[in-house]
Amino acid sequence: MQMKVVVLRMGHRPGRDRRVTTHVGLVARAFGADGVIISGVRDPEVEGSIKKVVENWGGPFSVQSGGKWGSWIEKWRSEGGSVVHLSMYGQPLDEVVGKLGGKDLLVVVGAEKVPLNVFEMADSNVAVGHQPHSEVAALAIFLDRFFGKAELKKEFKKAKLRITPSEKGKKVEKVS
Amino acid sequence: MQMKVVVLRMGHRPGRDRRVTTHVGLVARAFGADGVIISGVRDPEVEGSIKKVVENWGGPFSVQSGGKWGSWIEKWRSEGGSVVHLSMYGQPLDEVVGKLGGKDLLVVVGAEKVPLNVFEMADSNVAVGHQPHSEVAALAIFLDRFFGKAELKKEFKKAKLRITPSEKGKKVEKVS
Repeated sequence: MQMKVVVLRMGHRPGRDRRVTTHVGLVARAFGADGVIISGVRDPEVEGSIKKVVENWGGPFSVQSGGKWGSWIEKWRSEGGSVVHLSMYGQPLDEVVGKLGGKDLLVVVGAEKVPLNVFEMADSNVAVGHQPHSEVAALAIFLDRFFGKAELKKEFKKAKLRITPSEKGKKVEKVS
Repeated sequence: MQMKVVVLRMGHRPGRDRRVTTHVGLVARAFGADGVIISGVRDPEVEGSIKKVVENWGGPFSVQSGGKWGSWIEKWRSEGGSVVHLSMYGQPLDEVVGKLGGKDLLVVVGAEKVPLNVFEMADSNVAVGHQPHSEVAALAIFLDRFFGKAELKKEFKKAKLRITPSEKGKKVEKVS
């Protein structure tokens, strides 16, 4: 059976993080994850933006929100899954990504400040470089390594729109 | 002589895009570019955040802002450089990235709405997948392919802080 990969966005601050969290959700989908969970205070605007992309560009891709990040991690672990936390303080991605297969994977990305106990709760802490940059970039690179570039060719089901690659300009096809 | 790679962020809207544009700048630096240009209305908060990271974590990395995006592209081209625009409508990254070497490279990333003439002005339009996601993710994946993963091991000069990778928790060393 195929492994499931879900992204947990923790520490979302409605307003301030709205666009970055939306990007996290869209990157999760575009780079091959099966869904995103946004823990904490629910933010209907972010959920709506991600769901609209799924509606137009296809899925399947689940969007869940609310709840405590710690509870999501415990639930995932109790169902036999493994938890990876992306952090610039962790172990180098290219040294550890090969060891992560075999179990359903919860990929945790934080916002600006991350509580220290997430480092303990995760099965592994993985760094996409050790420089400060962006959880959006870290997630994309992580998933790209994990899926071995194949995610960029993933075909989504029930898409209404599809792009035909072109040298100049925009070519969008209406599928249904 | 080594090629120069600079990122041009166009369409920044102060306020709304502040965090995403900051992430674009930090990703440009962390993934091996030599600098970032943020065209349009200047946003001192974004510039300040990026410069603070350079101060603490090292460089060299230039931050420029203001001016029209079209003028930056024309200037770059007049100095013999090549211009790549990242867009979901472009040609597949993995088919074209091998052809981009040899000239100084300006990597253009837009915000939500991109004027159509940027597709004409760029030497090439390159898609990091053909799904909607994030200019931050697109930039990271593009630079990662371009530099062949080596950028994640880049050493920055005059850094005050440096991370020691660890399995749990945070280890930061003060270098100077």
